[in-house]
Parts: sequence; C-alpha cells; structure tokens
Amino acid sequence: MQDVWNKYQEENKGRFLEEMLELLRIPSVSAKSEHKADMRRCAEAVKQRLLDAGAGRADVMETAGHPVVYGEKIIDPAKPTVLVYGHYDVQPAEPLDLWTTPPFEPAIRDGKIYARGSADDKGQFYMHVKALETLVKTSTLENNIKFLIEGEEEVGSPNLGTFVGENKDLLKADVILISDSSMISMENPSLDIGVRGLSYIEVEITGPNRDLHSGIYGGAVANPITILSQMIASCHDANNHITIPGFYNDVVEATSAERALMAKAPYDETEFKNDLGVQQLWGEEGYTTNERTGIRPTLEVNGIWGGYTGEGAKTVLPSKATAKISARLVPHQSSKKITNLLLGYFRKIAPPYVTVNAFEHHGGEAYMTPIDSNAYRAAAKAIAATFGKEPIPVRGGGSIPICSILERELDIKIVFMGFGLDSDNLHSPNEKYNIENYYKGIQTIPYFHKYFAELSTP
Amino acid sequence: MQDVWNKYQEENKGRFLEEMLELLRIPSVSAKSEHKADMRRCAEAVKQRLLDAGAGRADVMETAGHPVVYGEKIIDPAKPTVLVYGHYDVQPAEPLDLWTTPPFEPAIRDGKIYARGSADDKGQFYMHVKALETLVKTSTLENNIKFLIEGEEEVGSPNLGTFVGENKDLLKADVILISDSSMISMENPSLDIGVRGLSYIEVEITGPNRDLHSGIYGGAVANPITILSQMIASCHDANNHITIPGFYNDVVEATSAERALMAKAPYDETEFKNDLGVQQLWGEEGYTTNERTGIRPTLEVNGIWGGYTGEGAKTVLPSKATAKISARLVPHQSSKKITNLLLGYFRKIAPPYVTVNAFEHHGGEAYMTPIDSNAYRAAAKAIAATFGKEPIPVRGGGSIPICSILERELDIKIVFMGFGLDSDNLHSPNEKYNIENYYKGIQTIPYFHKYFAELSTP
Repeated sequence: MQDVWNKYQEENKGRFLEEMLELLRIPSVSAKSEHKADMRRCAEAVKQRLLDAGAGRADVMETAGHPVVYGEKIIDPAKPTVLVYGHYDVQPAEPLDLWTTPPFEPAIRDGKIYARGSADDKGQFYMHVKALETLVKTSTLENNIKFLIEGEEEVGSPNLGTFVGENKDLLKADVILISDSSMISMENPSLDIGVRGLSYIEVEITGPNRDLHSGIYGGAVANPITILSQMIASCHDANNHITIPGFYNDVVEATSAERALMAKAPYDETEFKNDLGVQQLWGEEGYTTNERTGIRPTLEVNGIWGGYTGEGAKTVLPSKATAKISARLVPHQSSKKITNLLLGYFRKIAPPYVTVNAFEHHGGEAYMTPIDSNAYRAAAKAIAATFGKEPIPVRGGGSIPICSILERELDIKIVFMGFGLDSDNLHSPNEKYNIENYYKGIQTIPYFHKYFAELSTP
Repeated sequence: MQDVWNKYQEENKGRFLEEMLELLRIPSVSAKSEHKADMRRCAEAVKQRLLDAGAGRADVMETAGHPVVYGEKIIDPAKPTVLVYGHYDVQPAEPLDLWTTPPFEPAIRDGKIYARGSADDKGQFYMHVKALETLVKTSTLENNIKFLIEGEEEVGSPNLGTFVGENKDLLKADVILISDSSMISMENPSLDIGVRGLSYIEVEITGPNRDLHSGIYGGAVANPITILSQMIASCHDANNHITIPGFYNDVVEATSAERALMAKAPYDETEFKNDLGVQQLWGEEGYTTNERTGIRPTLEVNGIWGGYTGEGAKTVLPSKATAKISARLVPHQSSKKITNLLLGYFRKIAPPYVTVNAFEHHGGEAYMTPIDSNAYRAAAKAIAATFGKEPIPVRGGGSIPICSILERELDIKIVFMGFGLDSDNLHSPNEKYNIENYYKGIQTIPYFHKYFAELSTP
C-alpha cells in the first residue's frame, strides 16, 4: 500500500501544506475572551476540512465553553475504531515582540513553519485529517476513525469531561490516538509512554491597600513583592528539592531498571546546554536531565508581576504582587490533592503583614501508556515502517490533562504518536513545526490504522 | 500685612485654584518619551504663569533632557534672595485602572484635588508662584525671589547638576526653599529637616535563551523567576535587616537623644495600620515606624515582571525575569557607593545557571537641614504665624536627590516647607492635594519671605 499512499500524498503535498497554513492564520487563543469568535471560526473550519477529507459526518458541538469538533468515517461498526484526539486552540502568543514574524501569519523559513499552533496542536492533529483523506481517497481504509478535536486544551479542558461523559456512545472506540507531543529526533524516533500531570495556581499577595511612595512608607510596611519572593524562594531547598510538606508523598520512585532504560535514550548535555544558551543546568540533585523532566515532579513559576514595570524608574511600594505557579506531577500524584497542597502552603506561609488570594487555574492527572498493548505495538510498527527503525519509549515532561478523563469516561487506552521536536518552541515565541515532520506524520499515520486493524482482528 | 495678603488672596482664591488645575491637565510625565511635547508645553505654561504673577523675567532654558524654567523678581540686588526650587514633571500614572477619575483630568471631591502631580509637585511649587503674586500685587515684597522649576526630578534630575553648575551667577541666592514634601497634619504642622538618599537599579535575570514549555523543560533548566525571587529573598534576614555586605557601613546610628525627640512626634499605630489596611506592620527589628522611615536605610522592590502575566494560564518557563530595586539612604551613605554595592551584590550572588544584567537608573544623596539657621527659623516662624503653633522638626523618608547637588554647586542651605500630607498618595493612583493645604501654603509662604528678610538683615 505504501506506493498508492505515497503517490497520493506526493501529488497533494502542496495543498496539504497550504491547508495547514490556512488553519494557522486563525488566532484561536482559548485563554482570551477577545478571541471567542475566532475560536468558533476555527471550529467551523476544522469541521469543513473533515468533511472535505472524506468524513461521513462532522459537527461543531456545543459545550459550556468553546465548542468541540466531532467527526467520523465509519466503514463497518464491527471493525476496530480509532478515536483521534487533538485540539484546535492555541496558547496566547505573547510576548509578541519576540516573534521574528507575526504568530498568526505563518512564515516558512529553512523548511520550518513558524506560527502559533504549528506544532501544538493544529499542525499535528491536521496530519490525521490528511491521513484520513489518504485512506479514503485511495480506498484503503480498513477500520473506523473518529475525531474529537477540542478547543480548550490550553486552558485545562474544563468542559471536555462533561462532553465526553454525555457522548460515550458517539465516542466509543478501541483506542485513542493523540499527536500532541514530540519525538527525540528524526534520527531517533520515539514514542511517549507517559505524560506528567499538572496543578496550576495563582497566588496574589496584598500588602498595603494602595500603592505607596517607597520613600515615605518604605521600611515600615511589608512590600508584597519582597514577601512573594520569599514565599517562592521557600519552595526549593539548596538541592532543588521541593520543600512543600507532603509534595512527594505519593511519588513512586522509578526502579533502577527503569532508570537504566531511560539512560539509554540519546542525550548530549553540551548540545542541550548550547541549544538553551545556558552555562550550567539546574535541577533536582541526584537525577539526570531526562529523569528531571520525565519521572520527577517539578514546580515552576510561570509568571510574576507587581509594582512598576514600565520604562524608567518609579519609587513605588506596590499594593499587590502576583505569581502564576504550576507543578508537573508524576503517576500516583493526584492533581486535586497537590493543587490543595499548594494553595494551602501559600496561604499558610504568608506572614501576617500580607493577605493571600490563592486560587486554582486548572489541573490534570499524569498518564501512562502500557507498552504491551496492541495500540502501542501498532504505533511502534508504523514508526518502524516509515523511519526504518524501532521507536524508543520515553516518558514526556508535558501534560495532556484530558488523558485521565478520556480513559475514565471511555475506558480505553491512549497511545501517543508525537511528530514534533522539543525544539519546536511550544508555548514560546517563534513556535515552529518542521515541514518534513508534518509530511512524515501524514505518511506514518495510515500505517498505524493498518497495523492496529490487523492486530485487533483475531 | 496679614490683612492685605488675606484680602488679596481671598478675592483671588477661585482663580488660584483654577490655574493650578490647568497645570495638572498637562501630562508632564518625564519618564516616558511619548510625553516629550507635553513636557515642553508644561514648561512654557510655567514660564507664562511666572510672568503673569509679576516675575521680571522668566525663561524656558535648555538642558540635555527636559527644559528648566527659570524666573526671578529682583527688587534690589543688595537685599536677601530666596531661590525657590520645584519640579513640573510628574510620576507615571500607571496603573490607570486604579484611579477613580483620570489622572490628568483633575477632579475635586470632598475638598481634595485628585490628579497626578497635585501634591508632587505642581500643586506645591505653584503655591510659591501665587505667593509671589500676592507680594508683588500688594507691593509688600521686601526681598528677591528666584525660581528654578525643573522637569526631571522624577527621573533623578540627571541634567540639573550641569545646569546649576553652568548658571551659578544666575541662581545666586541666600537660601533655597523647597515645597516638595509633607507635614504630619494640619493640627501638627512639621518641617522636614532631612531627606533620604536614593540608589535605584534594575536587575534582569536571563535563564534559557527563549521562553520554554514548562512541561518539556521544567525541572531541568533554571527558571529566572525562581532565581530572581531567591536573590530578592536573600536581601533581608529574619529581622528584616538588610543582609547585603557593607550596606550599613557608613550609617551613623542616631543618638538616643535624637531618637527620644523623634518619639515625641504624634503617631498612632492603630490609625497608621487602618489607613494602610494591614493587620501588622513590617520593618527592621529594634526600630519604630518613624525611625524605619526616617533614620534607617531601606531596600524596596519597586517592580517585578517575568513570564506570562495575562489572563488565564500559560505553562511557560520564561527566558527572563526583571526587578526594579531601590534603596533609601541616610546621611553619610554615598549613593554612588551603595549603587555599586547593590549592582555588585546581584551580579555576584547570581548562580551559574543564569546571567545578570544589572544597571543603575538614578540616585541621589541624603540631606540634612541645620535647624539653627536663619532659614529654618524663618520657616518655623512662618508656620507659627499661620498655624498658630510651632512646627515639629522631622526627618522625612523620601528623597530629593537635587538637594546635595544644589548645596554643592551653590554653597547655600536648603529649607523644606512641605504642605502635603503622607496620605496624599504620592506616586500612587488617586494622588491628591487638599485644597485647604494649598491655600494654607499660599498664606504661609509670604511670611517666610518677610521673616527671612528681617532675620538676614543686620
């Protein structure tokens, strides 16, 4: 079948790229209310693309928040069904001045597509739409494919649990396939077998009830920036262990066998440091870089602000200082429990000079894929077919909070086939996706369907 | 003379207020380049007001930055000369959303004028223009008055030293009179006998060379917000003493006699806390509130920012985090020395995971007024004449960096007659100046000129 797929894809590759760029031009930022209309426009576009690709049905379906796009191509209800999950929403693009070209005007440089959402996740879920088209148009589809493309992944999927729970029959499938992660490199293809969980909170510290003159009041009333800094500083010890009592309680230490396996993944510290432009790496004492981002929970400050942040100098003692803080969690840590632990910690350690307003943004559970499943085997075989080598199983550092919800509501397993690279600048300025990876994904996905259908059919 | 002054001022009080509001409508923010034209417009307006008030000469004079307004009324070069210093520039008005009415559309509520610059310093220097008018129009001026109204006080007066040095003859005087500070209350009038010095720096911490996904990289590379927080937290110990080595080296401890005198100033801790809306005060162990803001040096973070600060949540590990940090200094501490100490400290304590870009914004020396001078005596007598009680001498917490420059270049002493209140929200949203205080200042200043002329004439 390789020939017929290759031929079809080769003939249509220009259009495949153009269509993806078209989607990237819609600023579907789910976190910002000003983009509400763009979100709907994007959902409608995705629906139309599914129909154009050969889906028998596609709908924009309402939720309490941004809509979900559902699509399906059912050839025979008795055949195995793959549910493709993806998201059409993107992260905010700020800081805009660090983008070489505007985030919603995709630009191609050096074989890479620069745009917000190129890798996360429009460029990646769209590979599945083009894989569907390939299978339908070459009459080689041998299983059923469903699509669940949501619009709230970047804000923690607050409404997807309800949506999935209310549409269990519609979403019934044998496996969930997600391309919303990365691989080590084109030379070292890998498959994520786990994602970390997430607890994301905001902590607002209030000192005096108004901004004060730092000369008249400085030294006699607590500065909320100083206090917040002290609170943040208290979260890590000198070995960069997290000091919040109970934080590690439910963490199951990886076995030495698992750690030995992880150590086999290609990793060049010099290259890693050079890419990031740092002289020295930072992290929890006693763990390697891959372990720090894979099997250990972490705590990061994602944003901080307070006082005067404009040009020049202003001698103000501000009323408020605020930080956005998130933890990445590993299996067995409960997002809800850690969120409450974090909120409780910041409320408790606040000195009596200030008041604290701490609240949750969103969270999600960690997830592990069993590597002895048909779904993982099918993914590994598909990678081997197009990359010419077996994929390395790795534990990813990111979070896809919907995983545990999908598994709980639908009672099926998830397999991750990410075609991005860690260097794609996800959530950062100049997000990009390599055109080569995009095409390679479109090429590989039909094999997944083929092998999964074969392996699932007794 | 009281009668003739009172009569003139009573007849013109409506216009005196209107003219001040007119000045407040010009957004003369010296820190922001977008207000360059407003700065010049404001300088021209001040010049015209001086001429209208009876000045024999008034000029907008160039500097390398914003212009200076010089004015004078010379009745006899042999008579004593008072040089009035003030500034027509104002602090940035941000955060704008916290203003009840727009900062440059003065609003009167409850006897108070709400506008940026109302107390600091347009409303206060303008009292001197109206005092000149009173003396000239009632033919009671018995000394010479000069005006030096600058446009860069809020950015550290970077060009005034040069200007003063180049215009020593023009500015020759017997005393410098400044109304750019506050008094305890209308019931407890006070005179500042000192101001604190200032060192103002900015510290930018860079971790990775770009914003990163906090899931993919979190835990393996230093987060500049965390590191900056740790650096800020390291600046104070548990007793809120500043820990930066050498910081207190040149501080001369106040004598117990001086501290006993300070303790006599009216101060109600409950009222102070209620006004600020805090449960507990913060400050250096072993010192009272008045000592903390008067005789002790302090270190404040005036602003901090880094990462995602918008609506919702973004899982970013930012490339940079930045803080604006300033120290208030006491006599004998050198601003230059402390600035270098601060810059050196932040550069030195930065761990090897990050790079530091630390630079100076501006600084200024502390200043003390001798209370046994004719100028101080004249000010005290003037206050007694209109308030009915002797003023309390206090050491103010703010900084007027130009003091030491003026004294050095002109070799004359400075006397502070501030008519504002600490609750005027200087540098904050809803800055205000009580109309009563404005009129009281205009009423009091002519007495200063009268008494100073009398005391200075053998």
